[in-house]
Amino acid sequence: MPELRKDPVIGRWVIISTERGRKPSSFIPVPKRREASLCPFCPGHEDSTPPEVMAYRAPGSEPNMPGWSLRVISNKYPALIIEGALNREPKGIYDRMNGIGAHEVIIETPEHAHDMVDMKVDEIRDVLWAYRERMIDLQRDIRFKYIQIFKNHGEEAGASLEHSHSQLIATPIIPKRVLEKLEGSRRYFEFKERCIYCDIIRQELGENERIVKDYDAYISFEPFASRFPFETCIIPKAHQSSYLEISKSDFYVLASCLKDTLIRLRIALNNPPFNYILHTRPISNESHDYFHWHIEIIPKLTKVAGFEWGSGFYINPTAPEDAAAFLRGIDVNEFEKMNAKKSN
Amino acid sequence: MPELRKDPVIGRWVIISTERGRKPSSFIPVPKRREASLCPFCPGHEDSTPPEVMAYRAPGSEPNMPGWSLRVISNKYPALIIEGALNREPKGIYDRMNGIGAHEVIIETPEHAHDMVDMKVDEIRDVLWAYRERMIDLQRDIRFKYIQIFKNHGEEAGASLEHSHSQLIATPIIPKRVLEKLEGSRRYFEFKERCIYCDIIRQELGENERIVKDYDAYISFEPFASRFPFETCIIPKAHQSSYLEISKSDFYVLASCLKDTLIRLRIALNNPPFNYILHTRPISNESHDYFHWHIEIIPKLTKVAGFEWGSGFYINPTAPEDAAAFLRGIDVNEFEKMNAKKSN
Repeated sequence: MPELRKDPVIGRWVIISTERGRKPSSFIPVPKRREASLCPFCPGHEDSTPPEVMAYRAPGSEPNMPGWSLRVISNKYPALIIEGALNREPKGIYDRMNGIGAHEVIIETPEHAHDMVDMKVDEIRDVLWAYRERMIDLQRDIRFKYIQIFKNHGEEAGASLEHSHSQLIATPIIPKRVLEKLEGSRRYFEFKERCIYCDIIRQELGENERIVKDYDAYISFEPFASRFPFETCIIPKAHQSSYLEISKSDFYVLASCLKDTLIRLRIALNNPPFNYILHTRPISNESHDYFHWHIEIIPKLTKVAGFEWGSGFYINPTAPEDAAAFLRGIDVNEFEKMNAKKSN
Repeated sequence: MPELRKDPVIGRWVIISTERGRKPSSFIPVPKRREASLCPFCPGHEDSTPPEVMAYRAPGSEPNMPGWSLRVISNKYPALIIEGALNREPKGIYDRMNGIGAHEVIIETPEHAHDMVDMKVDEIRDVLWAYRERMIDLQRDIRFKYIQIFKNHGEEAGASLEHSHSQLIATPIIPKRVLEKLEGSRRYFEFKERCIYCDIIRQELGENERIVKDYDAYISFEPFASRFPFETCIIPKAHQSSYLEISKSDFYVLASCLKDTLIRLRIALNNPPFNYILHTRPISNESHDYFHWHIEIIPKLTKVAGFEWGSGFYINPTAPEDAAAFLRGIDVNEFEKMNAKKSN
């Protein structure tokens, strides 16, 4: 059973993951070999993953068999496990609880070699729709307070399998960084009676220095205080505190926007490793109207070193204005055309 | 001029570093070559670094010439620069100020091939003493609120030169992570009227499950809620809020303790990349008696991925109790003996 432990000074929770238990010797680097024929996420290998939680499938195809276009499974090496009670308890001055939660993998495509930039907008829309479906299902579980959806692309960004996938972790507490964002936006709202993210969007559109692209219902931009070079944010222009407020028709627009942004980063930085994270309001009856959902994309270009770990203070060697100008100049159509030619 | 920018939602400051300005193309990885004969930190190459701020030298040797055993210089590519005024100002809803601060490098040894584990305890004591001297000097500058001292070892941990060195960054604001530690320990103190770190030490010594070694005036241990495998903390048993409270004679003990801990990590994890960070109280007239200085050592063994970035919630695959047991079992004398043989 994994364990949740709380840092007694700053209150940050940590998952001590026994399911992923690693002996000291296992940290000595071993070069990895990758073979598509052995990929557990490829069609025909459904039996090498846990059974599917849901899938989008061709009519008449059987669960856990080929015929799917998207597949959601439980993580084979879960950070948190679904069965059990929390049993929150003290241990002297410390706090711990059982590592209860959900940890799922969204296999985005049956094509081993397709990254998100190679997928059709329809397929990306389905991925975004699957996020929604899993969130709606999991928020019925009263043990969960937050659902974090994220994607690791590339080994340097923490992806252990290259077949394109996203992950979902439902946690029994609201994570610290989410609390900080909620707290910051709540304080602003109390003071100004306006959503801080709406004000940011207004200022960004007005200054037009950090906007990468103004889509219809969304913008992508480089945040004013970006921690990392080419850190990019995608946010709906209309005020929505939850990802679940997106209208059905807007999913296609959001998918185009995400694809466009990822293509720009791919070309600008030569297929960089990256993480993206969906920030939405927690599961709760409380109103979080001061919050505004968004997607944060972090290319992994610099190393996080001692100063950053110690201070929480980041050194970003590329001005967001320069990164935005560079990304605006990328010819996305050229990439799409070449990709279309390749697959013909 | 570098710029400090504040995240409007969570209040985290970021350094937008123009001196280190990097174009998008410069992020495409280029394999690095290293040659000791070209190392700017080696004796004889003093003219390829900025002039020294201080040095420990053989009697009669000239500044910025060979003859030193330790040398402190300004960073050639500083994240923050020393000359100028802060000019804190709004930019619409955002906050910015000039990137004023000090960024120094402590070259720990003239020997290119000596890591801290290869150095004599006397030499490490001198490094720790140099930290103290630089802190005392810099805290006279009223623009500075905090002095962060840290070390990056290995390329994966952010070291761009392999010659053993530490760094110091003095900042005009108290960094967020430092504030969190201060705030957490202050709240505990108000509630319990005891230092939380003193209570942690008491519990760790009592349980004796996570202690790596009990030195005389210090202990090294694996924190209960370690974020990373083999995260290790060195802390004085006696209550001291500031690093500057260490008695002169204790510097040798601290140096032995640091060396012993680094040797254990070196052997257990086959020379892992790591960061260490000195956490001490801020520069201020205010009493910070609730705080307790310590050194945090973080081996770089796992990748920080989307979940961690999004949630601030870490997944640690090695229980601190297992890591401590493993480190306790290391034969430090054996390493010392082999090292002595090598250098004969």
